Amino acid sequence: LIKTWEPNLIHYPLIGIEDEEFATSKKLITKQEVRAVTLAKLRIQDDLVMWDIGAGSGSVSIEASNLMPNGKVYALERNAQCLGFLRDNLKKFVARNVMLVEAFAPEGLEELPEPDRVFIGGSGGMLEEIIEAVDRRLKSEGVIVLNAVTLDTLTKSVEFLEDHGYTVEVTCVNISRTRGLTEYKMFEAHNPVYIVAAWKESE
Amino acid sequence: LIKTWEPNLIHYPLIGIEDEEFATSKKLITKQEVRAVTLAKLRIQDDLVMWDIGAGSGSVSIEASNLMPNGKVYALERNAQCLGFLRDNLKKFVARNVMLVEAFAPEGLEELPEPDRVFIGGSGGMLEEIIEAVDRRLKSEGVIVLNAVTLDTLTKSVEFLEDHGYTVEVTCVNISRTRGLTEYKMFEAHNPVYIVAAWKESE
Amino acid sequence: LIKTWEPNLIHYPLIGIEDEEFATSKKLITKQEVRAVTLAKLRIQDDLVMWDIGAGSGSVSIEASNLMPNGKVYALERNAQCLGFLRDNLKKFVARNVMLVEAFAPEGLEELPEPDRVFIGGSGGMLEEIIEAVDRRLKSEGVIVLNAVTLDTLTKSVEFLEDHGYTVEVTCVNISRTRGLTEYKMFEAHNPVYIVAAWKESE
Amino acid sequence: LIKTWEPNLIHYPLIGIEDEEFATSKKLITKQEVRAVTLAKLRIQDDLVMWDIGAGSGSVSIEASNLMPNGKVYALERNAQCLGFLRDNLKKFVARNVMLVEAFAPEGLEELPEPDRVFIGGSGGMLEEIIEAVDRRLKSEGVIVLNAVTLDTLTKSVEFLEDHGYTVEVTCVNISRTRGLTEYKMFEAHNPVYIVAAWKESE
Repeated sequence: LIKTWEPNLIHYPLIGIEDEEFATSKKLITKQEVRAVTLAKLRIQDDLVMWDIGAGSGSVSIEASNLMPNGKVYALERNAQCLGFLRDNLKKFVARNVMLVEAFAPEGLEELPEPDRVFIGGSGGMLEEIIEAVDRRLKSEGVIVLNAVTLDTLTKSVEFLEDHGYTVEVTCVNISRTRGLTEYKMFEAHNPVYIVAAWKESE
Repeated sequence: LIKTWEPNLIHYPLIGIEDEEFATSKKLITKQEVRAVTLAKLRIQDDLVMWDIGAGSGSVSIEASNLMPNGKVYALERNAQCLGFLRDNLKKFVARNVMLVEAFAPEGLEELPEPDRVFIGGSGGMLEEIIEAVDRRLKSEGVIVLNAVTLDTLTKSVEFLEDHGYTVEVTCVNISRTRGLTEYKMFEAHNPVYIVAAWKESE
Repeated sequence: LIKTWEPNLIHYPLIGIEDEEFATSKKLITKQEVRAVTLAKLRIQDDLVMWDIGAGSGSVSIEASNLMPNGKVYALERNAQCLGFLRDNLKKFVARNVMLVEAFAPEGLEELPEPDRVFIGGSGGMLEEIIEAVDRRLKSEGVIVLNAVTLDTLTKSVEFLEDHGYTVEVTCVNISRTRGLTEYKMFEAHNPVYIVAAWKESE
Repeated sequence: LIKTWEPNLIHYPLIGIEDEEFATSKKLITKQEVRAVTLAKLRIQDDLVMWDIGAGSGSVSIEASNLMPNGKVYALERNAQCLGFLRDNLKKFVARNVMLVEAFAPEGLEELPEPDRVFIGGSGGMLEEIIEAVDRRLKSEGVIVLNAVTLDTLTKSVEFLEDHGYTVEVTCVNISRTRGLTEYKMFEAHNPVYIVAAWKESE
């Protein structure tokens, strides 16, 4: 009798996984609440192809893949520390349909299947080149979502996306929360995140 | 040859459905971004039993059910106008595992299966009674989530939940967004929503 | 015995005047809370010269002049409706050191005394020209403050100001408030305002 | 020839003093933007009597006194570290009409002149007693303002003030700002502050 290892996923939700559950460095992770809004903006369906460019510790890829049992997520990352976190997290959350791609975007994008959805979590200073490369491959009715925490990224991403013919919506998410376990409840703010969503209007 | 009616769900995402897609009155709906964070706080898994108390137009029930193909959502509502919206929306989004329950909570709760998750979208002035009734039935490791838009509901829900032994976390969600189609992008704010999440610490 | 008319200012504070006290159209006014932060960013002192470009209904000019009994505020405006509001408000709040200048900026700026402070409340599509004209006249250690409610104005103002050698700080102000007189207190959000403050670092 | 020491106030604005200019510990200070809105809510006039209860490092007292050359501010504080900061700041900003009162409120309030305005920056666990003591002495048409950063203080202050017959307005201030001197502008959030303003409706 062979007892194969079986992951116990009973404690993890599909979305809303606690930030602390991910192997990560504190500044790297897309926080729980922003991740949820990001996934909403990505308009996930069951069987899509998604690219996660600058996947960081993989929290967006993992929750997206939980929503797409018949889909495929390609998580691009090249930072060595992030790759370590990513591998740990993909294993921990048994993210079978996330493919880890070691590449510094836009390198590596040409080889991937055409995406329905693209999430840009980090651009490593190559934002314009990445948007160009994505635009060449994105399927019609595709959606690009990008999270900006600086004014510069916000400004440039909107400019580049509009230059390539996209309709752009910006959502600013301000979250503050109390900590459940302290006796008195102080509201602590997260830094605001600008979620840029872009698509091409069909004619 | 018989062509049976087949819903075309191709355009609807699992979560992140546009507010405009729902039959509703403007003030009633839990907006897209807040809905996403609410679902994250509900810690949805594939096969849970959820109660949606004061289901309104049903947007939370519908997206929750999209995440729980093997679960069951009981949507309680008694307002006649809401019931109309709810029926239209359940049909439009083919929400097969949402059960509509015509009742004014806490009435009707006793007859339902024990819930893993409870979302309180509206309480009709019966907040304390509802929390008591929920507390009697909630499974261990269950989670209650409540959305408050007034200071009074925020204050009372935290008080009642703590009185019943729950650990409470409050998340304030402030969203502003630009409209995609206008030429110049003005940030428009939604009213803040306080998402109260409560659970009992296991000993 | 002659009793001359004497304004009763007893009910008006120096800053924090209620929005409803101003003759204005609803969309025009810089709201009470944002006005206060704007004045803080303007670093008002007792005896400065300030330009208020696109003065609208004059609320910023009036409160600034309350803080500068020995200073002078030049309020530029050309819109006929605004001019009516402005005149009414200057009279109502007895703003003796506010000079109304009927001009469409940058026209009219050359004739004014050099400013220590410039507030740009509206630019009428002439933002770059206004910033150029202001930059030619602003005293050393001067401060420019601009309120942006659209992404486009935010982006362009930062770009133009940095191009002219200014250090720029952006403050995003999100305000929500309950109404004092209703029985239950619902938080209502104002649209966010981006307060852009700019100055030249002394060498 | 005797050259007396003369403070150089040329660089300090009346309101909007940079947080870094105050002797303080980081968590103690009411931040610049929140201070401005707090002063607006206090409805300051030229010649009022104000109590600042739990004055901390004195930033609110100092800016309030800048707006009231003919008024008087009584700053109550008993924490030794705060008293050191307070003394340094009153000297630095030449706040001649701020009276430092070493007392742990509500102790010490009975001896003070009746206030037109009361700011409660800290209550040391004596919130109810302080509100009672203030209520006994506040002049008619007086205003109480309190800054809450925890849900508990927010809830209790509204409850106590309403119990004493006050009309209460709550303003939630969410501020994020970029740092002027960094190359790329990241928005950093301050924790939200709830400004509770209370007054009695005249009959």
